[in-house]
Amino acid sequence: MSLELEQLSIEEQFEQLLASEDKLAIRDFLNDQNISDVAELINKYPEYEAQIVGNMAVHRAASVFKILDIAQQKDIIKELPNSKTAELLNELPADDRTDFLEELPKSVIRDLIKLLDPEERKITLSLLGYPEDSVGRLMTPDYVYVYAHNTVEEVIATIRKFAKNSETVDVIYIINEKGELVDDVKIKDIILASPEKRVDEIIDGRIVSLNVNDDQEHANQVFKMNNRVALPVVDDNNILLGIVTIDDMLWVANEEFSEDMQKMGGTEVLDEPYLDIPLLKLFRKRIGWLVVLFLGEMLTATAMSYFEDEIAKAVVLALFVPLIISSGGNSGSQASTLIIQAMAVGEITIADWWRVMRREILSGLLLGTVLGIIGFIRIAVWHSIAPAIYGDHWFLIGLSVGVSLVGVVLWGTFSGSMLPMFLKKLGADPAVSSAPFVATLVDVTGLVIYFSVALIFLRGILL
Amino acid sequence: MSLELEQLSIEEQFEQLLASEDKLAIRDFLNDQNISDVAELINKYPEYEAQIVGNMAVHRAASVFKILDIAQQKDIIKELPNSKTAELLNELPADDRTDFLEELPKSVIRDLIKLLDPEERKITLSLLGYPEDSVGRLMTPDYVYVYAHNTVEEVIATIRKFAKNSETVDVIYIINEKGELVDDVKIKDIILASPEKRVDEIIDGRIVSLNVNDDQEHANQVFKMNNRVALPVVDDNNILLGIVTIDDMLWVANEEFSEDMQKMGGTEVLDEPYLDIPLLKLFRKRIGWLVVLFLGEMLTATAMSYFEDEIAKAVVLALFVPLIISSGGNSGSQASTLIIQAMAVGEITIADWWRVMRREILSGLLLGTVLGIIGFIRIAVWHSIAPAIYGDHWFLIGLSVGVSLVGVVLWGTFSGSMLPMFLKKLGADPAVSSAPFVATLVDVTGLVIYFSVALIFLRGILL
Repeated sequence: MSLELEQLSIEEQFEQLLASEDKLAIRDFLNDQNISDVAELINKYPEYEAQIVGNMAVHRAASVFKILDIAQQKDIIKELPNSKTAELLNELPADDRTDFLEELPKSVIRDLIKLLDPEERKITLSLLGYPEDSVGRLMTPDYVYVYAHNTVEEVIATIRKFAKNSETVDVIYIINEKGELVDDVKIKDIILASPEKRVDEIIDGRIVSLNVNDDQEHANQVFKMNNRVALPVVDDNNILLGIVTIDDMLWVANEEFSEDMQKMGGTEVLDEPYLDIPLLKLFRKRIGWLVVLFLGEMLTATAMSYFEDEIAKAVVLALFVPLIISSGGNSGSQASTLIIQAMAVGEITIADWWRVMRREILSGLLLGTVLGIIGFIRIAVWHSIAPAIYGDHWFLIGLSVGVSLVGVVLWGTFSGSMLPMFLKKLGADPAVSSAPFVATLVDVTGLVIYFSVALIFLRGILL
Repeated sequence: MSLELEQLSIEEQFEQLLASEDKLAIRDFLNDQNISDVAELINKYPEYEAQIVGNMAVHRAASVFKILDIAQQKDIIKELPNSKTAELLNELPADDRTDFLEELPKSVIRDLIKLLDPEERKITLSLLGYPEDSVGRLMTPDYVYVYAHNTVEEVIATIRKFAKNSETVDVIYIINEKGELVDDVKIKDIILASPEKRVDEIIDGRIVSLNVNDDQEHANQVFKMNNRVALPVVDDNNILLGIVTIDDMLWVANEEFSEDMQKMGGTEVLDEPYLDIPLLKLFRKRIGWLVVLFLGEMLTATAMSYFEDEIAKAVVLALFVPLIISSGGNSGSQASTLIIQAMAVGEITIADWWRVMRREILSGLLLGTVLGIIGFIRIAVWHSIAPAIYGDHWFLIGLSVGVSLVGVVLWGTFSGSMLPMFLKKLGADPAVSSAPFVATLVDVTGLVIYFSVALIFLRGILL
């Protein structure tokens, strides 16, 4: 039944049902909708969020809950009666429950964990023991495993027995008596095999697994390269601990992306949706970098004061200061973004620094030359229109500006590309060398380059 | 067999085998490795790339081929004999084949399509008919469908018959006689049901589907919210055309991410890995925006020339020009990145503009006030150390700088946050309002703000 065929929109139906106050009808209606539609209803009617979640069948409530924002999740848990919260938490897949808990203050975690039944509590506490951003936190212990000596018939019996609780049965895991991972097999191959075959006859011995301490970003990479919907997670002794499913990778990719973007915009990672974060917290996340950049940029005032006499003699020089330093900043931002992005997706590594440097020096020269020529032409054209602006020495002024542009753009491109690689080499996050950071760095040196070039061309003439 | 237990690394084994020139042993060795390891071998030994792909079993060669860079793919196709190319292309999943072909010049596509067998040719041509970045291009026609009146037993027979060719059998699709999509059912539910049950007894009528013309980014969002490993794709009449699998979403997310980053760094989208793109092409991708920004930034020289007399009278004013305009640029970059990122992940929409504007005006005031106070203090401290620098009017100079900073940062934050929303409203890509773009915009207005404030405070005194 396609949604387009319904007479009323979901919102309209929901509002009618709300007005009718028929609890049973509301429950039936909510259980009939797609999970994503219920999530949208919650976004539309935040005042009913706890009611909506509380009125659904618990396994569906869990599916909705896990795709909500952390802020919404917190609100709902606050409003739900304890018995409902316990039901909901017990029903959540272990990985999503861990994800939710790790966002809460420690005292709240303690209270909520008390609501779990003993088995779920054990699982949750063990997942919380793994470092944040590790594969361990994404793991679900709900999977189906069999032994290599089992027959296909036995495997199907096992699936029937355990599949209801397991998050995915697209892949079955084969372990040995010690619990070590031996192989995995797609359910498709199980169905295609004749029932009396043994598992070890249909496995191919090609297994890709993740270590529980691996970085989540690494897991993302492995999923991308291996075309699997789930990967087994083992400890250092190859003991199978759980599985990670590919749908979690979409969230990991999203989070990495948001964090990198925010760092590159010159702000701390927000870790809450923009509209939910309190204004003062938003301010704190932003002011830090702005102050650091401001203090750095103060050096421009110092640099300029060294050339105060030159500016006093030739005010015309000051006119081009913003143009020249911003060209360095723009080319630097461009270069640093290109390199950060290429490193983030694994296209270049630190080992490529020499090739990158050669390319960027050449690019910087080309880019700088083009801008330098445009800058010179601009001065020549203005001079021909209004000769008073630059006076007799327009040619030397134009030359100073043009040559400075080549130098500043070359320097911007060079430092913008090398800084992220250098930070990575030091073990820091290359995304910190954001556009504003590079621009600030290049501003100070750009001034020095500009006034030095001007001194060379104009000493004894204007200066 | 875990890789860590091997005596020699894969590279060492491969080099030994290469030296031995034993073609059969090389083939066996390659067929024994994980797909991702073979891909790494190709990255390490690009000179053998065609040999490696050519020597593998064709279905494995296809798996490797589809995760390589487009540049590597092109090279391999160039080197492979036509018969091998035909085999390889026929074996590639239709979506990956389309992905590869759309990167090639039209004439090459024509030649390659001739190599396909008639059935595959039909599929490929139909996929190529859908717009780039549409769900149609990601679709694979390899899926299993059954009718609602089929029994579970019949479904299992169908799976056995078709599953070998289908990319995923984790989900089975139910259609009616007209070919319209009715529902989908997880293979887990098929296995758990008793064989004589009819399909319409086990389906739940909750179906999530994609339209063939939907944007790939939209598909990504739907996958994130619905916890499925594959989604059916229908046309406007709800006819089932194919399916999209979740693993493709990891690549979509990656590509979106790279494109957004590159745009925000002020460059055109590279569409090739950084190290593979020819230097001149790299230059062309970068120079466009730099020139546009440069032309925009020229307005700073024009703006400054209006205040040339003021600068001549009070050179000290020129010293703070870089500090002030860059503070506006930094706060503007920060705001625009936050908003672009929040819009990209769907946290805010255009409808939220009013809330965003209020938040950003308040944030801008707070941020500007902090920077303004620091700026004033800096001037006061320098004055107390060396009273000669700013002279008797240090207080008014400090006030001009401080007040200008509040205005410039407020303006930077405001325009940085509103510009992406305005661009989105116009139907343009908000990521275009990159950090450099916003910085340039704010530079020009920042100068006007600064000198106007200075005129108010210093007219008749220094000016």
